[in-house]
Amino acid sequence: MRSLPAPIRDTLAAELATCPQAIALSDAERLLVGLVGAPPVGSAGEQGLWTRLFATAPTPSLIAALMVARAALGSAAATWQGLPLTERLPALRRELAQRGLAGFIIPHCDEHQSEFIPAASARLAWLTGFTGSAGQAVLLADKAAIFVDGRYTLQVRDQVDTAAYETLHLIEQPTVDWIAANLPQGAALGIDPWLHGAESLEKLSQAAEKAGGRLEWVDSNPVDAIWTGRPALPIAPVVPHPLEYAGEAAEAKRQRLAEDLAKADVAAAVLAQPDSLAWLLNIRGGDTAHTPLLLGFGILHNDGRVELFCESLKLLPETWTHLGNGVTVAPRAALGDALARLGEAGGKGQADRAATPAWIWDQLKSAGAELYNAPDPCVLPRATKNAAELAGTRAAHARDAVAMARFLAWINANATSGEVGEIQAAEQLLAFRREVPGFRDESFPAISGFGPNGAIVHYRATPLTDRKLAPGSLYLIDSGGQYRDGTTDITRTVAVGDPSEEMRRAFTRVLQGHIDLAMARFPEGTTGAQLDVLARRPLWDDGLDFNHGTGHGVGSYLGVHEGPQRVAKSGTQALLPGMIVSNEPGYYKTDGFGIRTENLLVVRQCEALQGTAKTFLEFETISFAPIDRRLIQQELLLPAERAWIDAYHAQVFSCVAVALDEPTRAWLAAATAPL
Amino acid sequence: MRSLPAPIRDTLAAELATCPQAIALSDAERLLVGLVGAPPVGSAGEQGLWTRLFATAPTPSLIAALMVARAALGSAAATWQGLPLTERLPALRRELAQRGLAGFIIPHCDEHQSEFIPAASARLAWLTGFTGSAGQAVLLADKAAIFVDGRYTLQVRDQVDTAAYETLHLIEQPTVDWIAANLPQGAALGIDPWLHGAESLEKLSQAAEKAGGRLEWVDSNPVDAIWTGRPALPIAPVVPHPLEYAGEAAEAKRQRLAEDLAKADVAAAVLAQPDSLAWLLNIRGGDTAHTPLLLGFGILHNDGRVELFCESLKLLPETWTHLGNGVTVAPRAALGDALARLGEAGGKGQADRAATPAWIWDQLKSAGAELYNAPDPCVLPRATKNAAELAGTRAAHARDAVAMARFLAWINANATSGEVGEIQAAEQLLAFRREVPGFRDESFPAISGFGPNGAIVHYRATPLTDRKLAPGSLYLIDSGGQYRDGTTDITRTVAVGDPSEEMRRAFTRVLQGHIDLAMARFPEGTTGAQLDVLARRPLWDDGLDFNHGTGHGVGSYLGVHEGPQRVAKSGTQALLPGMIVSNEPGYYKTDGFGIRTENLLVVRQCEALQGTAKTFLEFETISFAPIDRRLIQQELLLPAERAWIDAYHAQVFSCVAVALDEPTRAWLAAATAPL
Repeated sequence: MRSLPAPIRDTLAAELATCPQAIALSDAERLLVGLVGAPPVGSAGEQGLWTRLFATAPTPSLIAALMVARAALGSAAATWQGLPLTERLPALRRELAQRGLAGFIIPHCDEHQSEFIPAASARLAWLTGFTGSAGQAVLLADKAAIFVDGRYTLQVRDQVDTAAYETLHLIEQPTVDWIAANLPQGAALGIDPWLHGAESLEKLSQAAEKAGGRLEWVDSNPVDAIWTGRPALPIAPVVPHPLEYAGEAAEAKRQRLAEDLAKADVAAAVLAQPDSLAWLLNIRGGDTAHTPLLLGFGILHNDGRVELFCESLKLLPETWTHLGNGVTVAPRAALGDALARLGEAGGKGQADRAATPAWIWDQLKSAGAELYNAPDPCVLPRATKNAAELAGTRAAHARDAVAMARFLAWINANATSGEVGEIQAAEQLLAFRREVPGFRDESFPAISGFGPNGAIVHYRATPLTDRKLAPGSLYLIDSGGQYRDGTTDITRTVAVGDPSEEMRRAFTRVLQGHIDLAMARFPEGTTGAQLDVLARRPLWDDGLDFNHGTGHGVGSYLGVHEGPQRVAKSGTQALLPGMIVSNEPGYYKTDGFGIRTENLLVVRQCEALQGTAKTFLEFETISFAPIDRRLIQQELLLPAERAWIDAYHAQVFSCVAVALDEPTRAWLAAATAPL
Repeated sequence: MRSLPAPIRDTLAAELATCPQAIALSDAERLLVGLVGAPPVGSAGEQGLWTRLFATAPTPSLIAALMVARAALGSAAATWQGLPLTERLPALRRELAQRGLAGFIIPHCDEHQSEFIPAASARLAWLTGFTGSAGQAVLLADKAAIFVDGRYTLQVRDQVDTAAYETLHLIEQPTVDWIAANLPQGAALGIDPWLHGAESLEKLSQAAEKAGGRLEWVDSNPVDAIWTGRPALPIAPVVPHPLEYAGEAAEAKRQRLAEDLAKADVAAAVLAQPDSLAWLLNIRGGDTAHTPLLLGFGILHNDGRVELFCESLKLLPETWTHLGNGVTVAPRAALGDALARLGEAGGKGQADRAATPAWIWDQLKSAGAELYNAPDPCVLPRATKNAAELAGTRAAHARDAVAMARFLAWINANATSGEVGEIQAAEQLLAFRREVPGFRDESFPAISGFGPNGAIVHYRATPLTDRKLAPGSLYLIDSGGQYRDGTTDITRTVAVGDPSEEMRRAFTRVLQGHIDLAMARFPEGTTGAQLDVLARRPLWDDGLDFNHGTGHGVGSYLGVHEGPQRVAKSGTQALLPGMIVSNEPGYYKTDGFGIRTENLLVVRQCEALQGTAKTFLEFETISFAPIDRRLIQQELLLPAERAWIDAYHAQVFSCVAVALDEPTRAWLAAATAPL
């Protein structure tokens, strides 16, 4: 563990000793290292909140000592890299040889299926140099391969030493096939059972056996053994999520879900997803970027008790009070014993086999529990937002819309100058969002792409790729905010200078798809998979398409990508009132331009169809920003589509105008005028 | 086995003895009984064709003797019923007790998943009196239950002794739950392993174990032991399917599929679906109603050889020649040994675990074969019709359209008289079809429903339910033909007298859905599940829906319901060029009226979108009959929908008019005039 320089530690020790109700120095050092391992921005971003983890009422001099100590540790971040990149692979091979392993699998993930993994879990990036958001490497004594999806096939070759690693396509050349073909006979392939679900592990195991070898579980990850200066696991403050936004007390949620478990004769359910913990206990943390999660595991018993396994230093005093008697907190190391107790009690233990680390599944099984493979019981209740959550989300969107209007006016005024770059534009939007009350963080790193960069679906501008906006193409901005009352996600595509007719036609087709989905009425039980085609059909009529789903679920001050609902071929979950999904058809012309128009939708009862034989549902659009009128080919629109645009633009103006200065309001009035 | 009266047998014996190349008397008797067990109409319907099964060139006097003998056996059909209905259940219980079984499962099915099962397999109907097309009964010593789906919940109570049987809903009260709750501890529940797939058997087995009991496979079906006079398994003539219609020689098909097996390192594939045998070997039979199948099993070896297991008496001389050296024929009883040989050879044996009788799966397994669960290799090639099959299908549809035009003109002239009943109308249509060249059979029993009967999706008119058509409601006719060159299936709904505005609006919504699907363009890889919503959306806009899939696959002079493609929520198969699917949205107002408009569609490359980045597909509509213009609310139509109707009607007229008499042509001209 990283440690404090002696003078700084001494000062801190003295301040802790004199401040009432302060924690011990050893805890304080551990906490500081964990804070540095957490992302800098997030729900913990309130200036000074973190200092209250060290003492209920820190003295000004303790606060000063803490700030000095944290800065000292933070400035050491540059040294986290440890070994030079080229030495890491040989070092890991030596480590594996010492352990008697022929190889090891290194996935891009943490123990919690986090979308944004903490620095401590970025083993794949540290080992190989590859910084994409998905992939895995398999290392053997004499060869190694890294598997990435279509988004990253170019990037991986830039970042990774291709003499050391074969670069393969995750789907077309699956890891399991490579293992089956390359693992030597009789060899043991190491695997970290915390980083693989039981289901995917089974497939890897079959592949190893096909090669005449086997998987071997490691007790500690061998990458960590050679990663000198590895960041600590994040420890960021955990705060209560107020009832005003949550809409249902944590105790009521626990009791409600526990009753369902009892009815199904289940003794307890393992909660492996941090967003389930956050939702169930009405708490929010700051352990990962862009999503206010605390990393940990939970066990929900069928009497409503919850055992929470996480670093207890991260809980603020008010969070302890908030959690109350029904929740016990223990370190993650205690999870194994708790699972063993559950197993020994002999009841039925519920876990989601696909989404739970194999280690947990195995621990339950070997302790004798009857295993019940079922979805996390928090998933559906979390996805169907209650009235308070929806009210919060609508309010957050209304405020977010002000930032979007200011930004679009700014882009409109500045884009043709040739001076504005993609990174600068994204920073400008973030600056506008920071002025919005309740703003905590971007809900994901903004996608800000001009021209050909807009055609890269998951583009992230870097200084190397940064393009200046200039007349004659399209600018695409996909971004969102985390607010205490809700999570936003919105995409707009705007013309810079004069767009071509091809751009306008494709934009209109995308818009028609967006509108046709937004206007859909559908009977109860309809899935997102069924509706997906509505957003594609106008594009298909022109021989165009887009190679991603139409919509993903969105959380309530939680993940911007949240299941189980989706509008996509794979969206088998029925859409239920209260669910939030995105509506984001697009079109991408490689090396040309990108188009996407995205709003968030809330599923609700269809007001116009009350009293029909079946219950019908519809969508409420809750994102408000002008859609670039210059890009619409009006002659393509059906009358109902045209009416939708005019009505939507009227809503945008009435929602946002009051919060704008006069020039911006004038711009918005023109941008939202009827077609 | 039923036997011939002595004088008739003696005459037959004498004629067989004197005719050259005739079969033995014992074979002749078995064949006659099998012919009587086959449906009367079908592909074997050619007058006299069946007599050539008895001798290559039967003498006129042999033909006469055969006709007498067949008629004598046929007139005995009334005695097939055997025990009175009320005595069957007690008799079966005694039989089970003797065998040490606590109960037995009686599904509505045969060994071949036939849609229309032969009389010999109608055990459920014989035992319980229930004549619906799906369901199963479970019998225990002191209770019994019959499980049917929503179509039959009323009918089952009319037909079955509800004091003896609980009548339950197949989906809401699953058989497995009933077994788990009612099978006594330690009891053996009998099951016929030929009548259940390996997958569903596993679920039944789990249910029995949950009750503390177990399943026990029977060697012979106990129902057959008490069913005195049970019809014989059908033996109908098998004819070659000419290359002109098949488009690919059987040998070429065998070699093509065998190469795929060899590539996948599979030694042989079990063919459990009779339509696969018919397609692969280019043969057609008459063992089941409405579908020209021969019942049997096959094994396709990876060198192209096929072992066909069926009654060899049913093969005509020219069929033996047609099959050639690459195909061997053996009785079904020899299948077990063949599977055992396959298993002992140690190669990989392929079968579809869900669609293959458990007996076969088990036989392969216990013989030591490595089992490879994969779809029947004929399924996809069969579904993607070649150019000759499509040409034949188009030609069959064009001729079928003449019968439809004549019928619709006839209905239009006669429906308001109050004299025409549903059964009579269906018979009239069949009479028109019988005049069409190449007609062999209805492809399914026509659904002919007026008023409230039209709202019953799978309605079948009986003398008890038969309604007279009368002004003020709608008449729905869903029917099809089997022709040597193709299979048709078409539904029209026509106004009788003046329809209400509610009827017209709903009809128009259904029609818009039909058109929107017919006009769809979609990229390669799109599934029927993705497109299904296009046919529903206009209905959904009005709060209406229909409770069935939008479309099913259709065979080429084979099953009118053929997989794997479907346009439905469950249609996960990508639509491929050459596939045929129905397009049949509807709307059903219970106790009111029914609406359905159905044409068949062929999937083809989209002509208008050649040269786009992706390959796009579209549908070609191949059914031609007027759509009732009186039922269309024109103001609801989009311009593209209106244009589609006018273009379609012009096609109908140009396709059919030449074959009609002057009054019918005049009617058709008006019925297909532009809107």
